[in-house]
Amino acid sequence: MVQTIKGILSGIFICSNQNSFVTARKDIIRVMDNGLEGDKHTNWFRGADARAKHYAKKTKIWNSRQISIVSAEELKEIAETMKIPEVKPEWLGANICLSGIPRLTLLPPRTKIFIPNYYGGEDVGLYVTALNKPCITPGAVIQDNYPNINGLECFFPKAAQDKRGVVAVVERLGCIKEGSAVTVWVPDQYIY
Amino acid sequence: MVQTIKGILSGIFICSNQNSFVTARKDIIRVMDNGLEGDKHTNWFRGADARAKHYAKKTKIWNSRQISIVSAEELKEIAETMKIPEVKPEWLGANICLSGIPRLTLLPPRTKIFIPNYYGGEDVGLYVTALNKPCITPGAVIQDNYPNINGLECFFPKAAQDKRGVVAVVERLGCIKEGSAVTVWVPDQYIY
Repeated sequence: MVQTIKGILSGIFICSNQNSFVTARKDIIRVMDNGLEGDKHTNWFRGADARAKHYAKKTKIWNSRQISIVSAEELKEIAETMKIPEVKPEWLGANICLSGIPRLTLLPPRTKIFIPNYYGGEDVGLYVTALNKPCITPGAVIQDNYPNINGLECFFPKAAQDKRGVVAVVERLGCIKEGSAVTVWVPDQYIY
Repeated sequence: MVQTIKGILSGIFICSNQNSFVTARKDIIRVMDNGLEGDKHTNWFRGADARAKHYAKKTKIWNSRQISIVSAEELKEIAETMKIPEVKPEWLGANICLSGIPRLTLLPPRTKIFIPNYYGGEDVGLYVTALNKPCITPGAVIQDNYPNINGLECFFPKAAQDKRGVVAVVERLGCIKEGSAVTVWVPDQYIY
């Protein structure tokens, strides 16, 4: 058995600059076999880092972090906790922002997210691989956007605990458009 | 935090025949980017089937089932339940048999299995994507091997419930050898 949740694709974002973390909004984007077209994380592989500790740094490993997904509601909660007007998906380097999915960050690995294919035909499918643990990198971006408020950089990881979204890989390619209805399948822990 | 379990790589198996289900034992094998060298499941993609119900049959999707992993102890338990001398990994189309990993089938998605690289250097890494739900296909193979006992085909899915192993993808390539020590990292549900 699978639990089904309906939501909205409220934003699509990419970052094509290897030296930047912040993403930029797109109305429509192609979803490739292994990430969003033009996004710097789109690849079958990535270099091992603190999130893949067993391997020496930069060891070429499978990229289970192709797409970063956040929740509009959770970003609002983070902003409230941090007492700032807003936290934008772009500041977290997010690729996809969904609304209407309760506690998105706690969706378990193997959750599937289906989005209508703008080309027609089979839905685009994303496959959640992990919760995204917050670090200070987005905190620094938030701090830059509110220079008159102190301590936001280090406040972020705490305020964003269990609210920083998930990472996913592409299960089925296609083309997606902002505003589309989204269907989320939450798996039972041990069942297909 | 991560829980670490130690075990043994007690068998490696591949099937290069597209029309067969049964695998054959190999002493040493190369682990490619997306499966075992020469095995028919080795691919970035697969056709959607009953295990990926959202899509029309044969839709090209990401192959989250590159490698099938079973437990020597669980196969023994299945054989005891079915009152037969043994259930071989080959009969289940398994690629990897591990021993010493308690309740292997219930390892959650995102569990990692590290095996020493026979070439030296970084360990080979496998990344568990799902529990493997038993169907009657291996039951038919078991039945063929015990023609004098009735009803084994349909008995298998029941006897193998939560004991049929897991499927995985390759996180880090290399070369593996039967008999190697294996390290399993079991993730906390929502933590890296």
